[in-house]
Amino acid sequence: MVRRSDTKQRMVGAARQLIREHGYHSMALSDVVERSASPRGSVYYHFPQGKVQMAAEAAEAHTREQVDMINELAGEASSAEQLVRAYVDSAQEGMLTSGYGRGCTIAPLVLEVGEDSEELGAASRRAFILMTETLALRLTVLGADAAAARELAHATVAGVEGAMVTSRALRSPEPFDAIRETVAARACALTAVGD
Amino acid sequence: MVRRSDTKQRMVGAARQLIREHGYHSMALSDVVERSASPRGSVYYHFPQGKVQMAAEAAEAHTREQVDMINELAGEASSAEQLVRAYVDSAQEGMLTSGYGRGCTIAPLVLEVGEDSEELGAASRRAFILMTETLALRLTVLGADAAAARELAHATVAGVEGAMVTSRALRSPEPFDAIRETVAARACALTAVGD
Repeated sequence: MVRRSDTKQRMVGAARQLIREHGYHSMALSDVVERSASPRGSVYYHFPQGKVQMAAEAAEAHTREQVDMINELAGEASSAEQLVRAYVDSAQEGMLTSGYGRGCTIAPLVLEVGEDSEELGAASRRAFILMTETLALRLTVLGADAAAARELAHATVAGVEGAMVTSRALRSPEPFDAIRETVAARACALTAVGD
Repeated sequence: MVRRSDTKQRMVGAARQLIREHGYHSMALSDVVERSASPRGSVYYHFPQGKVQMAAEAAEAHTREQVDMINELAGEASSAEQLVRAYVDSAQEGMLTSGYGRGCTIAPLVLEVGEDSEELGAASRRAFILMTETLALRLTVLGADAAAARELAHATVAGVEGAMVTSRALRSPEPFDAIRETVAARACALTAVGD
């Protein structure tokens, strides 16, 4: 038996994949229905505010996944350097696995919609606040002071976000490699004993 | 007297601004005509392949401007660290001046179209190749060895690209500050005497 919420979750997942592949504006509600194998009438039943609501829920699903991932990676890391390396590795692996076909869920919302939609503007802001704050908190536990953790978190999240654009355009893993070495070296320096 | 090429250049400039503000798909040809104050019939006269050609020429204009800027900043820099700092400064200033309203010309083409258009895929790839290769060449002149210059160039271009997304979403200059300190420290370490 398929529960109502399963359909909705499948639709949010499909919307998220479509946004990662070709952005927000090109996502047709009919594609979401098809990709998630949902009944056509279910769009406005589950998403009375339509496409904006669907994208906002996709952004929230992305944010939850990223926060969970940061916490999981932090549990396995024994230094700030290891954590930022693992975070870059994970994004690079996702890009390679998709054959350079999928980027971030949030970036298209920022570049295509921005503040034109109050709801999507707020969802994008919340996504990056939660990702950087979670990463900064974990870096503090791993020995970085508050200012260092904040700088490292912003640089790592922005670096990965940018590598998801340039690596995809170049069809090369090299931008992720460069960002990884750069943020790892900074993490080392900022947490060196006596620094 | 208005020359034919002036109209075309104005239209490319308008297309570029529209892409930077709201991406590729939401750019209507009528907006380009209006923004550039061009005669309506001029679209298919100057751009027989339509919107794709317009975006490809906008990408090329962006690339030329970036390459010129890197060369100009390199002429004023006396170290690799100074050059990467100046490159991040310049992008941050552009973001603040636009009130967080404008991003990169290339990123939307990558995230919304990618390889679906051979022409735009090639234009995006060429943009990032030229930007990173030009920056790497200048960093070599300023004392970095070939591998270090390549890593620094990829990290700086990707870092700035990402900060243009996260800074815009957060409406904060902080991601640029974090990327600047991170790539500057790496530039210092990679060009230190005896390294």
